[in-house]
Amino acid sequence: MKREQALAIVKEHLTEHRYVHTIGVMETAVKLAEKNGVNPEKAELAAIFHDYAKFRPKEEMKKIIVEQKMDPALLEFHSELWHAPVGAYLVEKEAGIHDQEVLQAIKYHTSGKPGMSMLEKIIYLADYIEPNRAFPGVQEVRELTKVDFHQGFIKSVENTMNFLIQNNRPVFPLTFQMYNSIVMKMEDE
Amino acid sequence: MKREQALAIVKEHLTEHRYVHTIGVMETAVKLAEKNGVNPEKAELAAIFHDYAKFRPKEEMKKIIVEQKMDPALLEFHSELWHAPVGAYLVEKEAGIHDQEVLQAIKYHTSGKPGMSMLEKIIYLADYIEPNRAFPGVQEVRELTKVDFHQGFIKSVENTMNFLIQNNRPVFPLTFQMYNSIVMKMEDE
Repeated sequence: MKREQALAIVKEHLTEHRYVHTIGVMETAVKLAEKNGVNPEKAELAAIFHDYAKFRPKEEMKKIIVEQKMDPALLEFHSELWHAPVGAYLVEKEAGIHDQEVLQAIKYHTSGKPGMSMLEKIIYLADYIEPNRAFPGVQEVRELTKVDFHQGFIKSVENTMNFLIQNNRPVFPLTFQMYNSIVMKMEDE
Repeated sequence: MKREQALAIVKEHLTEHRYVHTIGVMETAVKLAEKNGVNPEKAELAAIFHDYAKFRPKEEMKKIIVEQKMDPALLEFHSELWHAPVGAYLVEKEAGIHDQEVLQAIKYHTSGKPGMSMLEKIIYLADYIEPNRAFPGVQEVRELTKVDFHQGFIKSVENTMNFLIQNNRPVFPLTFQMYNSIVMKMEDE
């Protein structure tokens, strides 16, 4: 699917603010892909569609999670997590994108998971550092990512965990497992 | 088992520093038990023996974890976690204590777990706030515990998680599950 066609599809599903964010993720993801030997077309497509389901009604997302037998733990956690796996499902069904690598990158862009592919990490990190983002620590992650993609990725995961724990927020099991796998690998090195 | 007999047994297995800590946990646990309707004799016994295996060689603890089919995940995490479940096993085997509530309180005093009994929480919290402890935040937890046991317990878990994440330390799954169960219950209230 061509960039313009993909953007035209998602534009109808997003607010103006979220569309601007999506453009930022797209430009960031393409740059990261080119720099790190990952297919930039896949990164572009995954980035464009990553928030496709962001504004679906909660009840519709819940129904899809149940009917498609997605991880039932999702329903115990904040609905903010739901748009990623539900989005991967709807992007295949409604937009006809069948590239499993692209769909997986959409599916895990919010929770993360241990052992992510480079494409998955790129979408996760681009979503965190795209130029419209403004929260404490984001500039440090941008700078780190310029120097070393993996250090930037690790820092974004650490920051996310710190934010969640400091605010006494529940942590989705996949996010926790991603964190543990990263820090345990650091200890081994 | 009488207090003096129990203390005489553990004294042989601990350094002087750790014995002083044990006395602190004992006195704190008994007070918390009396104040919160928990059997103080059980709290005393669990407190006295909670660090029984603290100075066992790592290889011996590893062997026991494998042979007694304890959670194999333990071996992937810091050996600091091992003395608690290994201690519960050795306290039964070597000191002849068969009270399962006491043994469970020893077993989970370091990792914690979701859904701990009051006795288990008392040992966990007494270990954290006993008077010889001196680390950032401990005084706040002591004060909170005086006012409301559960608030003190929750704060100790939050502080522990914050410490681990801020220092990029792995988090044992039971500890993570305990944290999630606590903060998810807070959100429900």
